[in-house]
Amino acid sequence: MIFNLMTRVASPPLIDLSLLPWIPQHVLATAEEADSSLVLAGVLLSLVLIYAASKIGGELCARINLPPVLGELVGGVAIGVSALHLLVFPEGGSTATDSLLIQFLELTTNLSPESADAVFAAQSEVISVLSEIGVILLLFEIGLESELQELIRVGPQAAIVAVVGVVVPFVAGTAGLMFFFGVSAIPAIFAGAALTATSIGITAKVLAEIGQLSSREGQIIIGAAVLDDVLGIIVLAVVASLVKTGEIQITNIVYLVISAGVFLIGAIFLGRFLKPFYMTLVDKLKTRGQLLIVSLIFAFILSYIAAAIQLEAILGAFAAGLVLAETEKRKELEEQVIPVADILVPVFFVGVGARTDLSVLNPAIPSNREGLIIAAFLIVVAILGKVVTGFTVFGQPDLKKLAIGVGMIPRGEVGLVFAGVGAASGALSSATEAAIIMMVITTTFIAPPLLRVVFQEPQAVPEESSEV
Amino acid sequence: MIFNLMTRVASPPLIDLSLLPWIPQHVLATAEEADSSLVLAGVLLSLVLIYAASKIGGELCARINLPPVLGELVGGVAIGVSALHLLVFPEGGSTATDSLLIQFLELTTNLSPESADAVFAAQSEVISVLSEIGVILLLFEIGLESELQELIRVGPQAAIVAVVGVVVPFVAGTAGLMFFFGVSAIPAIFAGAALTATSIGITAKVLAEIGQLSSREGQIIIGAAVLDDVLGIIVLAVVASLVKTGEIQITNIVYLVISAGVFLIGAIFLGRFLKPFYMTLVDKLKTRGQLLIVSLIFAFILSYIAAAIQLEAILGAFAAGLVLAETEKRKELEEQVIPVADILVPVFFVGVGARTDLSVLNPAIPSNREGLIIAAFLIVVAILGKVVTGFTVFGQPDLKKLAIGVGMIPRGEVGLVFAGVGAASGALSSATEAAIIMMVITTTFIAPPLLRVVFQEPQAVPEESSEV
Repeated sequence: MIFNLMTRVASPPLIDLSLLPWIPQHVLATAEEADSSLVLAGVLLSLVLIYAASKIGGELCARINLPPVLGELVGGVAIGVSALHLLVFPEGGSTATDSLLIQFLELTTNLSPESADAVFAAQSEVISVLSEIGVILLLFEIGLESELQELIRVGPQAAIVAVVGVVVPFVAGTAGLMFFFGVSAIPAIFAGAALTATSIGITAKVLAEIGQLSSREGQIIIGAAVLDDVLGIIVLAVVASLVKTGEIQITNIVYLVISAGVFLIGAIFLGRFLKPFYMTLVDKLKTRGQLLIVSLIFAFILSYIAAAIQLEAILGAFAAGLVLAETEKRKELEEQVIPVADILVPVFFVGVGARTDLSVLNPAIPSNREGLIIAAFLIVVAILGKVVTGFTVFGQPDLKKLAIGVGMIPRGEVGLVFAGVGAASGALSSATEAAIIMMVITTTFIAPPLLRVVFQEPQAVPEESSEV
Repeated sequence: MIFNLMTRVASPPLIDLSLLPWIPQHVLATAEEADSSLVLAGVLLSLVLIYAASKIGGELCARINLPPVLGELVGGVAIGVSALHLLVFPEGGSTATDSLLIQFLELTTNLSPESADAVFAAQSEVISVLSEIGVILLLFEIGLESELQELIRVGPQAAIVAVVGVVVPFVAGTAGLMFFFGVSAIPAIFAGAALTATSIGITAKVLAEIGQLSSREGQIIIGAAVLDDVLGIIVLAVVASLVKTGEIQITNIVYLVISAGVFLIGAIFLGRFLKPFYMTLVDKLKTRGQLLIVSLIFAFILSYIAAAIQLEAILGAFAAGLVLAETEKRKELEEQVIPVADILVPVFFVGVGARTDLSVLNPAIPSNREGLIIAAFLIVVAILGKVVTGFTVFGQPDLKKLAIGVGMIPRGEVGLVFAGVGAASGALSSATEAAIIMMVITTTFIAPPLLRVVFQEPQAVPEESSEV
């Protein structure tokens, strides 16, 4: 659901085909179908491109101590509609002739220009669904790596940091956009919501790199980021459904908060109830892949239910991960999910980058300045809204409160999901979408160096002498 | 390319849409597009069904000492067009109203009957491509588990068993169909070719189960089965291309044998040449999934090249697997490929089962008897054609020659690929396709019990007393 809706917003069909009764429906479907060996060739080429872009971008970022996910995003921008035009999507208004990949297929295979449109449409559809399955697996893995027990243990401090870190950027972002920039309510709420969720992956990785993962500050950051992820996903579900139903009603919000809460808590309780059955089943099955397949059946069923009750499929995947994280199979399952996530998650991140039209941020064009100003505003709110959270920690005078706040700055996956879902549903203008992506990129870029500075602050002199 | 071609054979479009110039091409593409959250929901439900069918079928077969892959096939038949109609495909002539899965979606989501056709088409397209990627990963894994060195070591005996085991069933099957049954050349060649390749997976698994994997007979069987797989894939490439070009010409066969040979040998030499570069790259990269992603880039590029030069994509995947099997990363790579294969390969096997219309073999209908007689003939040729191979082993009087021949009987993946490719290209009638599938099912069913019998023959009495 993340991207394909764009078409209907960007280019509504000029002719409603239901008005053409003399063409039986199945004929249209048949005519649309492309030679599937060429579709397969197109999908294979797309995957090669996506993997190459994700690895080149990711490795370059890793080399300069930035999170690899940022590189995947930038790699996507490089091969996408903003630059090389290798991977473009019909939802962005591109046609087969805009796609260098399809042109390469025409050059190297027996693809004719007449059937290029059908191959382009089918290849884009498959890559879009793969990217959606990618984000489902990402959230499943994040759920699997989270711990309900840990959330309870790190306790009140983490909870306050998480809640303040969701409420302050959300309220400040939404209110600021509405009152200073005259943005209407729904896009303002969407942009505000995109400011809420800290990237647990990025934060945890950076903390590990600077050896602060097990410090008290580090533990609070991780606890808050985990909780933050849950809150962020609930906010996403609420906001996305608000946009679907088109209006803001308190009853609607209450329904959604309750249904998201009931769904998550229900899934967790159901999961605990089913846990012995799951363990017996996995232990009794003896064919290859039994653990992974049984777990994915569970995750996909919850994803389907979440989608069917108007929440997001990823919420179901996250709940499934949380539930299975509590079983003894967790470690083994994680090991098997990782390779699958490794090949599907980059399709999502590179896809987000490839669809991002950065030309809307070109400052040379006057009409773009609105987007740039919004981006600047969102970045300031994103940073300040998280930095303040550190100072809400009570009863711990010796903690580096600034470090906790800075640790919460990086936004990542969930922020990008907001941008994607928002644009797909038509709620966000492309300027606002690009501004959100700029915000994610910027917060992710600045957090790692800032974290180093604030953590080293008190011992800056002794550490300099020891040349660490 | 395996399945979607069927549409064009089974139901040519009634109206050529290029004759409707007043509808711009991109409008058709737009109208075809479905709400992608519903497509995603449909794909998730399909995967849940496929996984459940593969595990229920696989586990039941494992319980009665049959290969699980057989159960996946039967599970597919159970949910497919022959039985429950949960998973059906437009290529088989089904529409959205025939699909119980789409009806379930209409019941549980806001899918309207009007847009059901588009969702059905998109869901089928995605599942088809996933199944094709599944068979690519299967052949990549088989390549990775094969050993060029082993092939050379088991030497002349295995080679003779392999060659005889390819030539005899191919010639006997093709000639028999043409002369006794009046089948025309191309379908006869296809059916004959489907008799060639022993299932290395099934054979190795059964040998391991009866503790004969490391016996001299076991080693010859495995060596021959590996070689057999390579020969079978070359035969597949040659036959599939013959069908594509529509005629049998010696120059064409020579071109294809040479291009398949040059491609395989070229890929292996290129691979050896690139091996140091590959090792350095994998070692230097430090972001997650670097080994798997770099290897899949290599496999997908070779698959793309194989498809582009009119061979099969799976030949490229197999070559990539063989090449990477020679690196020191093999073990680690295999461990990462297995979970990915585990979630994609069942989509292929269950899909093959789901598309198989077993009603063409119903003996109550007189017109079906041809298919049944063909199936009986193919089964006899398949068994005898492999059993004779054991007696070609020379200079080893104490070997159980019958056991070697029986060990070569099970056909599996490659035989099913022949059935799929043959039907997709329009070369095979549905009766012949069903006959091939019956042959695969039967040989796979009878080989495990037969193998037990022939291996235990000489020591039957002492083993009975020790109650093994």
